[in-house]
Amino acid sequence: MSAAKKVLVYGGRGALGSACVSKFKELNWWVGSIDLNANDQADANIIVDKDAGWIDQETLILDQLQGLLNSNQLDAVICVAGGWAGGNAEKDLAKNCELMWKQSVWSSSISASIGSRFLKSGGLLTLTGADTALKGTPGMIGYGLAKAAVHQLTKSLAAPASGLPENSLVVSILPITLDTPMNRKWMPKADFSTWTPLDFIAETFAKWTDGDERPKNGSLVRLVTKDNKTALLADI
Amino acid sequence: MSAAKKVLVYGGRGALGSACVSKFKELNWWVGSIDLNANDQADANIIVDKDAGWIDQETLILDQLQGLLNSNQLDAVICVAGGWAGGNAEKDLAKNCELMWKQSVWSSSISASIGSRFLKSGGLLTLTGADTALKGTPGMIGYGLAKAAVHQLTKSLAAPASGLPENSLVVSILPITLDTPMNRKWMPKADFSTWTPLDFIAETFAKWTDGDERPKNGSLVRLVTKDNKTALLADI
Repeated sequence: MSAAKKVLVYGGRGALGSACVSKFKELNWWVGSIDLNANDQADANIIVDKDAGWIDQETLILDQLQGLLNSNQLDAVICVAGGWAGGNAEKDLAKNCELMWKQSVWSSSISASIGSRFLKSGGLLTLTGADTALKGTPGMIGYGLAKAAVHQLTKSLAAPASGLPENSLVVSILPITLDTPMNRKWMPKADFSTWTPLDFIAETFAKWTDGDERPKNGSLVRLVTKDNKTALLADI
Repeated sequence: MSAAKKVLVYGGRGALGSACVSKFKELNWWVGSIDLNANDQADANIIVDKDAGWIDQETLILDQLQGLLNSNQLDAVICVAGGWAGGNAEKDLAKNCELMWKQSVWSSSISASIGSRFLKSGGLLTLTGADTALKGTPGMIGYGLAKAAVHQLTKSLAAPASGLPENSLVVSILPITLDTPMNRKWMPKADFSTWTPLDFIAETFAKWTDGDERPKNGSLVRLVTKDNKTALLADI
């Protein structure tokens, strides 16, 4: 491996993850992807065994990463894995909660484990929360509670003795609506000028990795897009 | 079943759960307990299969409860199941998170499912959060994120169209330290006058079940004990 920046994208095959992989490759960084399927643009892929439990997934990923990185360290761990499910308490609550938990919290906690072992001093760890989960989410209970757990995890990891390396930065982005192909498909009549472009987020991650315009450690950064312009509101 | 109040205690064999079962039996209420082991004071017990998954536990418990209650409804569902594990991101994070998740979030979400099906109009659902999880918890990451999920679940369930019956009340208690035999064993030199007595909490639940001194729906009620007096701070 060269002296180029080294970044890992958890969820590197999803819409936002793919945008991040593309952006980081444009910058000539070394990019690893973790997902259920490979991202061919990435320099290395770790494929998650979706039938493995939480602990086994963590072990398998850490072991593979150890082999890949050898004694190199990462400049950033970008966790953009996730998903969405609706539903209130009346039906399939455990099922919806479990799915949301696996998609958002397993990936976030494993990213934290990765950070504690492979992130360099001063490195960046980003997680993905949700603006809506700052309040109650009665129509998407499983989604809200999983995202709230990610928010609190962000605060824990930013506090002293969390196990992350010295001077590292932990931040969660809190999207409102991302401008993804799937969202355009399902909400064709929405006002896209209020949706956050994926490229903007990838650029923001690149800046933070470079040490530029970093928010305060532990910030929950709301992404508020209006007239195609996105503001980062890190006041929480 | 008589016209007596009917209350279900999730975690009815634990320290706080047992105190609740005793208190409710003193009041001559019908009391059901859900736990890994039976509480002999309870009128009925549902034994959780600890090897079953989240969805299966929910199904098994709802089915058994349907049989037990016949067409009766519950006045209150009191979820006091939980546990504690320390640990930061450096070691066993997935393991600690999984244990905390199962103990606190599975029980809370299943209590919500129970509430949506068997709670009467105007009934009470209580969950158990933690004061410490209102901030980051770097030395007990799994515990903090599970409790934060419970806090957000409380807000979701209190919002319109959550699936709970009309006029029901959802509240989480946020203990600081409970005065349990185990806590006295492990912290023998602590100042017990700042620990919250279990009996006080059981009495509070009884009052709320009776419709007395109810906090606002969705409240996170901090239990702050000083000089052996406990204040309920429901300002969150």
